[in-house]
Amino acid sequence: MKKWYAERVARLQKKLARKKLDGLLVTEPHNRRYLSGYTAADHGIGESAGVLLVPAKGQPALLTDSRFVLQAEQETTGFEIILYPRGLVHLLKKLLPGRSIRSLAFESDYMLHATFRKMEKGLSGQGVELVPASGLVESMRVVKSEAEIAAIRKSVLRNEQVFSLVYNTIEPGMSEREIALALELTMHELGAERPSFETIVAFGDNAAKPHAVPGERILKSGEMVLIDMGLVLDGYCSDMTRTFVAGRPGELFAERLRVVRNAQQAGIAAIRAGVTCREVDLAAREVIRKAGYGEFFGHALGHGVGLAVHEEPRLSSRSRRKLRPGMVVTVEPGIYLPDWGGIRLENMVVVREDGCEVLNRDATGLDLS
Amino acid sequence: MKKWYAERVARLQKKLARKKLDGLLVTEPHNRRYLSGYTAADHGIGESAGVLLVPAKGQPALLTDSRFVLQAEQETTGFEIILYPRGLVHLLKKLLPGRSIRSLAFESDYMLHATFRKMEKGLSGQGVELVPASGLVESMRVVKSEAEIAAIRKSVLRNEQVFSLVYNTIEPGMSEREIALALELTMHELGAERPSFETIVAFGDNAAKPHAVPGERILKSGEMVLIDMGLVLDGYCSDMTRTFVAGRPGELFAERLRVVRNAQQAGIAAIRAGVTCREVDLAAREVIRKAGYGEFFGHALGHGVGLAVHEEPRLSSRSRRKLRPGMVVTVEPGIYLPDWGGIRLENMVVVREDGCEVLNRDATGLDLS
Repeated sequence: MKKWYAERVARLQKKLARKKLDGLLVTEPHNRRYLSGYTAADHGIGESAGVLLVPAKGQPALLTDSRFVLQAEQETTGFEIILYPRGLVHLLKKLLPGRSIRSLAFESDYMLHATFRKMEKGLSGQGVELVPASGLVESMRVVKSEAEIAAIRKSVLRNEQVFSLVYNTIEPGMSEREIALALELTMHELGAERPSFETIVAFGDNAAKPHAVPGERILKSGEMVLIDMGLVLDGYCSDMTRTFVAGRPGELFAERLRVVRNAQQAGIAAIRAGVTCREVDLAAREVIRKAGYGEFFGHALGHGVGLAVHEEPRLSSRSRRKLRPGMVVTVEPGIYLPDWGGIRLENMVVVREDGCEVLNRDATGLDLS
Repeated sequence: MKKWYAERVARLQKKLARKKLDGLLVTEPHNRRYLSGYTAADHGIGESAGVLLVPAKGQPALLTDSRFVLQAEQETTGFEIILYPRGLVHLLKKLLPGRSIRSLAFESDYMLHATFRKMEKGLSGQGVELVPASGLVESMRVVKSEAEIAAIRKSVLRNEQVFSLVYNTIEPGMSEREIALALELTMHELGAERPSFETIVAFGDNAAKPHAVPGERILKSGEMVLIDMGLVLDGYCSDMTRTFVAGRPGELFAERLRVVRNAQQAGIAAIRAGVTCREVDLAAREVIRKAGYGEFFGHALGHGVGLAVHEEPRLSSRSRRKLRPGMVVTVEPGIYLPDWGGIRLENMVVVREDGCEVLNRDATGLDLS
């Protein structure tokens, strides 16, 4: 395990050298974990559990405070652990000159303007130039190793286990919120670190909102139920959506579910290395369009999943990015009709050389005749 | 209720005029709610549910996207709701010239560097100067109105109700995590929006870590239990800590609990309008020092609580800030002995002209003879 981190750091260092940067300050928590194995969580962007200082050459360091030092030492190898009792900027002023870091990149998408100003003020006298950077580590994370894929597979299957346990208890009279809480409680009981996003449970026409928040609405017999859920296991996320009916589905529901299922299968069939994201999105979208529901599928077909639940690539009709082996993406077409409801089906797949591997096994509500 | 928001906006507008600022962009969610009543939650700083544009003169606006428009319309009055289908910067470019906003302040502690750069790039051609600001709204939030105090009191009492229900079920054999989950589930059941922070449950020597994370450790008979918990009700936070023993407390535990309780009472006795934060901290600290535990009380005595669970003022030995009537603070002394455990007691109080009002009623484990 530990070897991975050394390899990742080495790859990043090569990248920094190519870009003529002397170092990168890593503030984004998933990037920090990806490079070092350090799992501590930030409590918001203003309360950091630590920052990596990766020089283009030489040993990387994990800068943190006394509350986290034990965890930092236990979880990382090869990183020098340095405390900042007087704050990050004060420590950097002392550290950078000795390490010959004159151009220091930072993660512009994960640094507060106020923090940047403090750094700029504190470091300008030291002749250090701060260089805003974007995606340096994220672009490494986009292709997963087989070990990462194994971890994601475990997360997907654990998530299905949670779904299945709760699915068997769902009956008319339960509220959206009650089911969402049962799902999140079961995630904890089965060892998940946490949900990978706020669980969505939506009944009937609530399912027409792609970002519905579970409320006190009570499930009626014959109503549709949309559940979008995921968990984090050993750092890796899962994300799955199922839509089904409490009771016997009507013909209209079955027909529309079939459309969404066919669109999902068309998307999955289009996935293989070398294909563009756009082509995959359009393959699924075309099925929905032909069935007459084109205007009711308003979002992109899918997104990458890994340490973060939403990451690159985006399976969007606007993305000409090419899929590469080892990318992991969701395939989640949906149709949403304001006064009726919504149906979304979401599985996760691994892009392979000649196709893709579907990570999900659960077939709830998909056994349509 | 709605009148409050108009008054708050008017106070902020006066402040902006005094500082010769033409407007403020409010991106921090608690500030946004404080000024407008809009309750939507951001999913991280990168995924905003909307931004207020408060001009020094004239009608304020809530800028958001289509997902939130219904909620924005329902929850706010007096705000113009404007959508940004092409992004915030694009909208600002169109809006600002027509509103004579040439110097626009923004919340430097709650804006990403990357967002700032996009704004700077987009607005510089319009002759708009971006002015980093800090604490403009936070400083208004620090003194609470009686209506806010009533909401906080309700949150405190609801939190105690949750504690009490779960407290009565605690017995040896339960895990830290199990108790933490039961607490959070009960919060939901009793109508809380969410926990105000991740609930802490720590047994035995785990209680020696002020920021312990609940794990699989099993409670043994006679072990100490530290619970630090809070919830959000109608937007307002509570925060309470109790430490007790599963079974009969030993003499050493009782003695140390008495020290912490006496320190807490000394702190509370010191609180009244006009006293500095430092004096209050030291009044409590002195009791712990005299009992011989001075080096085992490493954190500040307390912090403000309101829409955010940690806000100004800080009851710290380094703060010479004076308390004002209507401030709400925690008083939470503790002693932490690495191989033994930790005891912390935390109540919330309202600063009054001649003293303070303790909001808590719960006396679990405090009835020491």
